[in-house]
This record gives sequence, structure tokens and C-alpha cells, in this order.
Amino acid sequence: MLKYLEQIVGPAGLLVGEDVSNRSDSWPPTGGCLAKAIVRPANTREVSEVMKLCHAANQAVVTHGGLTGLVNGAKAGTDDIVLSLERMRGFEPVDTVNRTITVEAGIPLQKVQEAAEQADLLFPLDLGARGSCTIGGNIATNAGGNSVIRYGMIRDQVLGVEAVLADGTIISSLNGVIKNNTGYDLKQLFIGSEGTLGVVTRAVLRLRPLPRSCNTALVAIDDFEKLGQFLGQMDSALGGTLSAFEVLWNDFYRLIVAESGRHGLPLQADHAFYVLLESTGGHQESDKDRFESALEEAFESALISDAVIAQSRQQRHDLWAIRDDIEYMTRELTPAIVFDISLGIPLMDEYAREVRQQLSAKWPESRMLVFGHLGDGNIHLVLTVGSDEPEDVHTVETIVYEALARRQGIISAEHGIGLDKREYLKHSRSENEIALMKTLKMALDPKGILNPGKIFPSEGD
Amino acid sequence: MLKYLEQIVGPAGLLVGEDVSNRSDSWPPTGGCLAKAIVRPANTREVSEVMKLCHAANQAVVTHGGLTGLVNGAKAGTDDIVLSLERMRGFEPVDTVNRTITVEAGIPLQKVQEAAEQADLLFPLDLGARGSCTIGGNIATNAGGNSVIRYGMIRDQVLGVEAVLADGTIISSLNGVIKNNTGYDLKQLFIGSEGTLGVVTRAVLRLRPLPRSCNTALVAIDDFEKLGQFLGQMDSALGGTLSAFEVLWNDFYRLIVAESGRHGLPLQADHAFYVLLESTGGHQESDKDRFESALEEAFESALISDAVIAQSRQQRHDLWAIRDDIEYMTRELTPAIVFDISLGIPLMDEYAREVRQQLSAKWPESRMLVFGHLGDGNIHLVLTVGSDEPEDVHTVETIVYEALARRQGIISAEHGIGLDKREYLKHSRSENEIALMKTLKMALDPKGILNPGKIFPSEGD
Repeated sequence: MLKYLEQIVGPAGLLVGEDVSNRSDSWPPTGGCLAKAIVRPANTREVSEVMKLCHAANQAVVTHGGLTGLVNGAKAGTDDIVLSLERMRGFEPVDTVNRTITVEAGIPLQKVQEAAEQADLLFPLDLGARGSCTIGGNIATNAGGNSVIRYGMIRDQVLGVEAVLADGTIISSLNGVIKNNTGYDLKQLFIGSEGTLGVVTRAVLRLRPLPRSCNTALVAIDDFEKLGQFLGQMDSALGGTLSAFEVLWNDFYRLIVAESGRHGLPLQADHAFYVLLESTGGHQESDKDRFESALEEAFESALISDAVIAQSRQQRHDLWAIRDDIEYMTRELTPAIVFDISLGIPLMDEYAREVRQQLSAKWPESRMLVFGHLGDGNIHLVLTVGSDEPEDVHTVETIVYEALARRQGIISAEHGIGLDKREYLKHSRSENEIALMKTLKMALDPKGILNPGKIFPSEGD
Repeated sequence: MLKYLEQIVGPAGLLVGEDVSNRSDSWPPTGGCLAKAIVRPANTREVSEVMKLCHAANQAVVTHGGLTGLVNGAKAGTDDIVLSLERMRGFEPVDTVNRTITVEAGIPLQKVQEAAEQADLLFPLDLGARGSCTIGGNIATNAGGNSVIRYGMIRDQVLGVEAVLADGTIISSLNGVIKNNTGYDLKQLFIGSEGTLGVVTRAVLRLRPLPRSCNTALVAIDDFEKLGQFLGQMDSALGGTLSAFEVLWNDFYRLIVAESGRHGLPLQADHAFYVLLESTGGHQESDKDRFESALEEAFESALISDAVIAQSRQQRHDLWAIRDDIEYMTRELTPAIVFDISLGIPLMDEYAREVRQQLSAKWPESRMLVFGHLGDGNIHLVLTVGSDEPEDVHTVETIVYEALARRQGIISAEHGIGLDKREYLKHSRSENEIALMKTLKMALDPKGILNPGKIFPSEGD
């Protein structure tokens, strides 16, 4: 097998032994990829040849992008071959009239952002792992991030996809236009299916005008109901240019700002909620006026209790640093257990209270921080119960997901299912839905060789 | 069969005889639906029962929405049963915090627009057939329309879908949140697949802030290359609030405005191109200032030759009436042949010239108008060669689509494939793509009972 693989990709394309075991396929990296080999094709034709070979040999294949996923979606077993797209990082020049860029799947997100910006355009997908994560991985996991409220998930940024099926067939749907109603929209199969239906090799991405203005504020709100009203009012007053609406529950702000001493104290720490609000637009001066008068309006109608508006790039950076201080958070809450959930906005606070109460009942010393992309209906819980023993983690997961299921919540807003959330998939998807997913899997990968074991609950669950 | 169907839907739910043959299933309506019966279930359970029965009996089923499609996608044959969603028109109250509305598939688009507006929100999908077309049909055909440049196709407005599969299984994916990465995004299967993979019965739709301002202008441009530059510059200067960028080629403007005498003469008729431009936002006064100064900037940099800005609702209405005067156009160009294509913006003008030249060579008296959603990469051709004999239409289609295929264009931007464009699908989709579509069709509808014959080329093509 390895000999045949080497014939396809050449000696530089194949890693075995320590070159494999020294790599990690989980995040944070821990070392120890178990795969038989890592095969690194240089182009789509080689990916296709590799898949043909593996298909004929019933060889399981796990595709690797930047390996920054959080649900063990790229974990390989001892019987698996890893297919890494790391040598496929090329891209074509930005098409400035149609506002697209065509890239190979192994290109890091940040390179795409930079190429767009050099052409005075924006690729709006943005997340913390931008330097390492790849477009192929972003597509395979339908990445979200910081700009979803304005631009949507990556699903909304992908115009066309080239993918290789389990049997090596190349599906080239490199559509470059916004509107294409010629039969089934096949790219949707490969977006968010975590490498289980095909290997994404190239993509045509949609670019947007580069914003000429950016206005940022941190706002305090003391009543949960007002959060939703404030979101609606700002989105309306800003004419749809709202680009971030991140909410921090009081515990988060108290720990990260007041107690840590790392971020000054832009607002007093006794408010119930804090909103990091941002709007991007076309004209700095008039956008700033509008942003400020929209906030004044909200203040006068008593929706918000206090606010600070960034007056410089540095101040903007400092406000975002609060939201992004995951380092301090995970240091203080060790060992941390992290959740990424969606649910109806009005239910969020009572939900967080119920989870907190149940955790406290079992672990009086437990701590939980709540924050996230409230404007997208998506919050994160970061908590610790002082243990990361599997049975404790399992108990925590059951508390978190069962309270969520009672509210028709979603167990994974952004991160996907991978191995880690398979068992809980049933809380967000019905039996009929899971059966239909399996029908698709059977139709596209009847031998089950693509990223086996991911997404679907094993039979016992 | 009919007896069993009547047991499910009751006497009021079943139409036969003249009640069927007096209906039309093509557009414009011509009468003469050939189906054995029209079954009209009152709810999803009844749809499921109907499908179970038809599945067991290998009975072909053609789903009907508002019947305003333009590609004969809902045409029924003498062996078919029509499944009409016309009795399923209910909707739940607008959820103003999460900004969603849940509706039954048979509800007309306009009812959804009105319900949203009453809650001070916007359902952005809009098209001429709004009073008759249904949300189910909009979803099944992935409808586009006038606001795609700002909000995307209906695919981007649908959060969740409930659908009934060929065998009667109910897939309830009534997700109501923006972010949901829990396994495959099944709703994508039913969006744009023209009723061949399932029957959409309900949907959760995303609503947006209702714009508080609207600014509209008609602009003259004399150089095709400047059109793309003007689009980029306006989109950037307006901060992403551009909501229409409709282009009329000179022939269109000359006929509809200068020759018809129906619309005054807002700009002289000797310019090469006209752009109907619109921006919606959050604040009428400052948005107007910005809109005007962006146009001034374009005028000063010689991108545009002339412009008129609507100063009232009536003036806005009058400008749109030019773009929307399909009535006059199809009266003057009789019999009309209509195309709906996407291609790269820089290629549009030379493409139109080539088609015009080839038509003139064969039919010296032929006329062709070019116009459309240039900002979306989508234009319409409306032309006449003085005949609608099938062989002449076929020759015209071959000219139009072959010139398009050489430019990697898309034969159907919005309208879909239906029966009318099956033969030409191969110009926009590869053999591998069509094979994969058929794999999906086989997986979801192995008996081929859902809208048979649509989308896929028959074996001879």
C-alpha cells in the first residue's frame, strides 16, 4: 500500500514512522498521530489517485487541514491513512471585478484574508486560528467566527467547490457566480460534513468590499430582556452594518477584567451583561456620527446603562482583547470544559442559570463563564468542576445537553460533531434526520472509508 | 387509488375531472393540467400519508406551489398525481427577538412579506410573482429576485425546513438558529431541487431589520468596463448597503423609454448603459447625503456620464417601472424567447454582441434586449426572431447556450431547469456532476416518483 502511495505522490509526499507519530491530530496538540502514514498529494489529480487506490483496498482515509478543530474531527486510528492537504496551498490572483478568489484547500485562512486585502477587498471569515486553519478545513467544518452576524458562515462565502469522492471521482463544481440554479447545489454536500462525504481540494470564494470605517463600543446592560431589544434596535438603526454583537455575562467580565487586572476597567464590573458592539461601513465620519447617535438613542430609552466608545485603533484592540482573552480564562478555569451551543435568544439566561445551579448542586466549587455571539444565537460555556475525569466530563455534558434539548437548542453551533459530540447528536437531530444523513453517507461513501467514525453515533449510543 | 387518497384528505381535498383539466400547470397559464387528480392535503401528516400511499403504488407525484415558474418545472403528465400545497397556508406569529417566522409551504410570498413588515421586520425575498408564488415553490426553486445583491437567494433566508420524502418519511429540520453545525445540513437537499428529492411542507425563515431609508438613482455609463468599476466603488462607498444594481443595455432603454413614450425620459437615450441603483439603510437623512456624495465622486472620476436621483416615492416608483415594464417588452418582441443566465461580469458585453451577431446573421429582423441583475452576475436576454416554431427556438437556444458554455456561463441563474432546460444542463454541469446528482436522486427517491422527468436530461440528449 505505502509503495503504491509513494508512486503517486513521490517520496516527499509520504511520511511514515516518527514523522507521523510526532504530529498531533487533536487540539490543543498533544503529539501522537496513530496513522500508518501521512500522504501529501501535490494536486487534485494526485488526491484522486490516492482515493482510487484506497477505495480499491478498502483503506480508511482521514483528511487533515490545519488541525485546529475542537471536537476531534480529524483523529486518525492505527488502521487509517492520513491525507494531508498541506502541499496544496496555491491560489489564483484575485478577480477584482467578479470579486472572487480561487484557492487550493490547503491554504491558510490568513493568506486568503491578506490576498483579498491587497486587492482592496475583504474575505470576511475570521477566527482565532486564522494563521493555522485552512480553507479546506473551514469548508469541511462550515466555520463561523467573528463576522457571522454580518456575512454568515463560510457556507455563505463559498461559490464553488472542487472535491474528490471516496472512489476518486473528481467533482469540479468551481462555480464563480452568485446565482446558479442548474440542478442540485452539490457543494452543499461538502460544506460542514467534516470530511465524511468527500475531500475538498479547491474552492471559489466570494469577496466583499473592504470596509472603510469601523466603530466599536462596549456597552453595559442590566436586564436580559433589554439585550434582545438593543440588538434589534441597533441592527435597524445601523442599517444592517452591525458586524459584531458579542455578549459577556457578568462572571466573565468580573474574572477577565476586574479580577485579572489585565485590561483596565473600561466599565464598572457590577452590570449584569456587557455587549461588545461593532459596525463597519463605507465612510468613517458619517458612520461614527450614526453609531454614536444610535447609542445615545439606546441610552435615552434606558436600554443600556453605560457605554464606552473606542476612540482609536488601540482602544478598539483593547476592547476586543477582553473578549479574546481565552488564555487567561482557560488558565483560571482548569481543567476547562468548553461548550459551543445555539438556542433561542430569550431562553439563554434562564438556561445558563439552570446549568449553573445543577453544576453547583453537584460541585459546589464549580465555576462557569458564559459569553459569545449572541447576535447569532450562539453562546459558549467555559466551565470547570475541578476534574477532567471522563465520567465527570460525561456528567457535565449530560447536564449541559439535556437542559439544552428541553429548549430545542443546538449542541454544536460552530465546532461540529467529530468524535466528541457523536453521543449527543440525538439531542439536536431526530432519528429521521440521522437516518437520512446515513442514507447520504451510504450513497456517497458506501465502503465507509472517509473519516470513519465521525459524526454518527456508534451503535451502542 | 383515488378512493384511498380521498380517505386521507377528505372529499374537499381531492379534485378530479374538469377541476383538474381547467387548471394550468405552465406559465403563462394556458389551461389543461393532464394529471389524474389533484390532491390537496391540509397538513404535513396528510402529505406523509399521501406519499406513503403513492410510494407503495409506484405512483408519480408532481408537487404544485403557485405555478409561476418559467421552465415547466411543475408540468404533470396523464399518469401523474398532483400534490398541491394550496390548503397549507398557515403561519406562526413572527418571533421578533430571534427574528424568524415559521410558515406552511403553501403560503404566498407576499403574505410573509406583510407579516414581517407588521412586526417592523423585513423578509427580503421579492419577485414579480409575489402575490401568487408560494414559499414552498420559492424554496424548491431557490428563488432569487430583486434583493439578491444585498441578502442572497432564498437559500440564505431559510433556517429550517420540514419536508416529506418519497416514501412518506417526515424530515423535520425546523432549525430556528443561524448557526447549527450538528451533522449534515439536510435542508440544502430540498432547496433548489425542484421537488425531485422531497416535498417541502414547512419552513423557518430568517427576517432582517426593516430598512428606514431608501435611495434610488438612474445612472448613465458609456463604457462597459466602467460598469464593473462603478459597482465596486459604490458597494464600497455605501458600506455594503447596496440593495440593487440593475443594468439596462441601450436597446432596452431606447425601446422601453424613448420609443414607448410610457416613462418620460429621465436620461437621454444615447448612452451605452443605464444602471438602476438602490441603497437601503438605517437613517434617511445621512444615507441620502452619503448616496449623493458617492454618486458625485463617481461623476468626478468620470465613471458615470449622467444621473438622476429619485426625490420622492413616486419618482422611485417611476424609475423601477422602467426596469419592470415586461408587459411592453413582451408585447413589442412577439413571440418572445427569454433567457436567464449568469456569467463573469467582464464577459457580458462581448457575449451579448456575439449572440446578437449570430442571431442577425440568421434572422436579419431579429431583436434582442439585454438587462438584469448585473451586480449578481446575472442578466436576462429577451429576444424575438419572429417565430416560436420549436426548431427555431431550438436554434436560438443552441446559439445562446453554446456561446455561454465557451465562457463558463450558467444556463439558469434563477429560473431552474424543469423540463425546458434539461437538454442544455450539460453546458453548465459536468458529466461527473450530473452523475452525482443522479446518485442523490437514487438515494432519496429510488422509485423515481417525485416530479419525474424534471432536471435530468433524458437518455437521448
